[in-house]
Amino acid sequence: MLQDKNEKRTPLEELGEFALIKHLTKDFKPTRPSTVKGIGDDATVLDFKGNKTLISTDLLIEGVHFDLTYMPLKHLGYKSVIVNLSDICAMNALPTQITVSLAVSNRFPLEALEEFYSGVATACRIYGVDLVGGDTTSSTKGMLISVTAIGEGDSKKITYRSGAKPHDLLVVTGDVGGAYLGLQVLEREKEVFKVNPQNQPDLEPYTYIIERQLKPEARKDIVELLEKLEVKPTSMIDISDGLSSEILHLCEQSGVGCNLFEDKIPLDPTVIATSEEFKMDSTMIALGGGEDYELLFTIDQKDFDKIKGNPNLTVIGHMIEKEEGAHLVTRANTKIPLKAQGWNSFND
Amino acid sequence: MLQDKNEKRTPLEELGEFALIKHLTKDFKPTRPSTVKGIGDDATVLDFKGNKTLISTDLLIEGVHFDLTYMPLKHLGYKSVIVNLSDICAMNALPTQITVSLAVSNRFPLEALEEFYSGVATACRIYGVDLVGGDTTSSTKGMLISVTAIGEGDSKKITYRSGAKPHDLLVVTGDVGGAYLGLQVLEREKEVFKVNPQNQPDLEPYTYIIERQLKPEARKDIVELLEKLEVKPTSMIDISDGLSSEILHLCEQSGVGCNLFEDKIPLDPTVIATSEEFKMDSTMIALGGGEDYELLFTIDQKDFDKIKGNPNLTVIGHMIEKEEGAHLVTRANTKIPLKAQGWNSFND
Repeated sequence: MLQDKNEKRTPLEELGEFALIKHLTKDFKPTRPSTVKGIGDDATVLDFKGNKTLISTDLLIEGVHFDLTYMPLKHLGYKSVIVNLSDICAMNALPTQITVSLAVSNRFPLEALEEFYSGVATACRIYGVDLVGGDTTSSTKGMLISVTAIGEGDSKKITYRSGAKPHDLLVVTGDVGGAYLGLQVLEREKEVFKVNPQNQPDLEPYTYIIERQLKPEARKDIVELLEKLEVKPTSMIDISDGLSSEILHLCEQSGVGCNLFEDKIPLDPTVIATSEEFKMDSTMIALGGGEDYELLFTIDQKDFDKIKGNPNLTVIGHMIEKEEGAHLVTRANTKIPLKAQGWNSFND
Repeated sequence: MLQDKNEKRTPLEELGEFALIKHLTKDFKPTRPSTVKGIGDDATVLDFKGNKTLISTDLLIEGVHFDLTYMPLKHLGYKSVIVNLSDICAMNALPTQITVSLAVSNRFPLEALEEFYSGVATACRIYGVDLVGGDTTSSTKGMLISVTAIGEGDSKKITYRSGAKPHDLLVVTGDVGGAYLGLQVLEREKEVFKVNPQNQPDLEPYTYIIERQLKPEARKDIVELLEKLEVKPTSMIDISDGLSSEILHLCEQSGVGCNLFEDKIPLDPTVIATSEEFKMDSTMIALGGGEDYELLFTIDQKDFDKIKGNPNLTVIGHMIEKEEGAHLVTRANTKIPLKAQGWNSFND
């Protein structure tokens, strides 16, 4: 639908498995000092010289996690990397390498895979990470992507989900809810397209939220900002499933409760306008909508002055004793228990 | 066919995604000093205290890499781990942790996943590796497995594919060709079963080769043996695609040629007998049949005395100048160029 049709179609059988991997990865040259040996042996060799090694992995399945009707392959390559880099950033550490494995059915020509890898290459370049390995094979149906991100961290800075204490401030980066609403717009246009393929959608008013869905970013800049501000968060997580679900993860693993203030949740004007258009409550979208890949963290109150006024950071609540529970404090000053509305792929 | 049908079937929707991961991994407790933080945060944290980090990853797809008709899920869980541990061993390093990601369609009940994870647990226990992360999600078709193995190595011992020199000896561990022939027997029995489901196959004569196919081992013992013998191989690879293909990898990456002697290739008596039964040439099976997960390596001639007579190790040839090429020297003393008969999943 939004995707260009490639003219040239080289069947994958023409290359064979080894030649395919070689072809797709030929322009990926290691740049990080910690990459001792990248692609081309039985395993990758990395040297973190006494720093900690961080590992995170994700599986993305066509028809479950992405829809190629409106997801250009280049964006998919980019996003597949980003969601994993985000997990490393959520440990207050820096991503350094990735491996990318891909399984595709015969309906994908070589040019499609090149598109995908060009998105991977863009992410590698922007985030300064090396592609160091992976696997390319055939699937019996559709496209499957498995990415492993590797990072490096100083043990004094690595931040877990489990360190929040009562009275800590709850901070979120950027704004939330956009990626979910972008998906709603794309799904709506897909339905329109099914009925009338000639229809040219005007997506201009939705540029911001569609970009949030198709081309999210990992907040590596925040890890660097916190270092500069000399703030060590007490707990941290990234927002992949929605604000509500992530707050509950921090509460559960830290053994604390939380008050989240509805009027503090940062929303982009496009999110507010599009929520109204869809007759949905923007707070509910912020709480339940996932894939924003912003960071959510807690800081000690003594660090408040250091982050105050920073446009990237919004204090949205504070942690309390576990027994008091986790609540949304509404604009009308009523308290509603937070519920995990995390996305469950088995309930489709 | 060879698999027990489970009586109890708990649909995966009953648990939801977070509860499912928690349930399946609840008995996996970190045991390695290098595992700082295992399952349960955005990323795993490992500490190799100055040693190198090794990473290897593989994607296994139902209908491409395995057939659940004759592959019990417990064995599949075991084998999925082994094939990745083997890659770490092939660097002359020791595997320490794994991540396992799984995507399954709704036809798999919880009990099937428990079976799979019990195989993963057995491999973890036997090889002393920790399960430290992964992902569990739904697929639109069949079962997909992505495993990443992590290892630790001393930079003085890590062995690449690229270090072989002319006059080095070519050594293989164990015996080869069994896993491929085991697969042929299982495929034959599957066809018989389709025609006559009442038929009880007598697989007893094929026990060794079926086990080679369904329950391979990673040669971690060889890495330890080489350390004890004070032998540092000059190059090393594991045999996943067949002896011929792996020898050519060593030759290409080291810039050398090779003479492989047909009469030295170690074959189990079951391999010889079953080859005759299938009217196949046992040497061709050893050269082209994959999945043995033995190690293939080269050593300097001065180390020959250290490995001589060890029942685990067989010298099967020697490396020569690149210009002389890579050949099989037959029993009749004729030279045949080695060809890569590696398995190509896009040619099925």
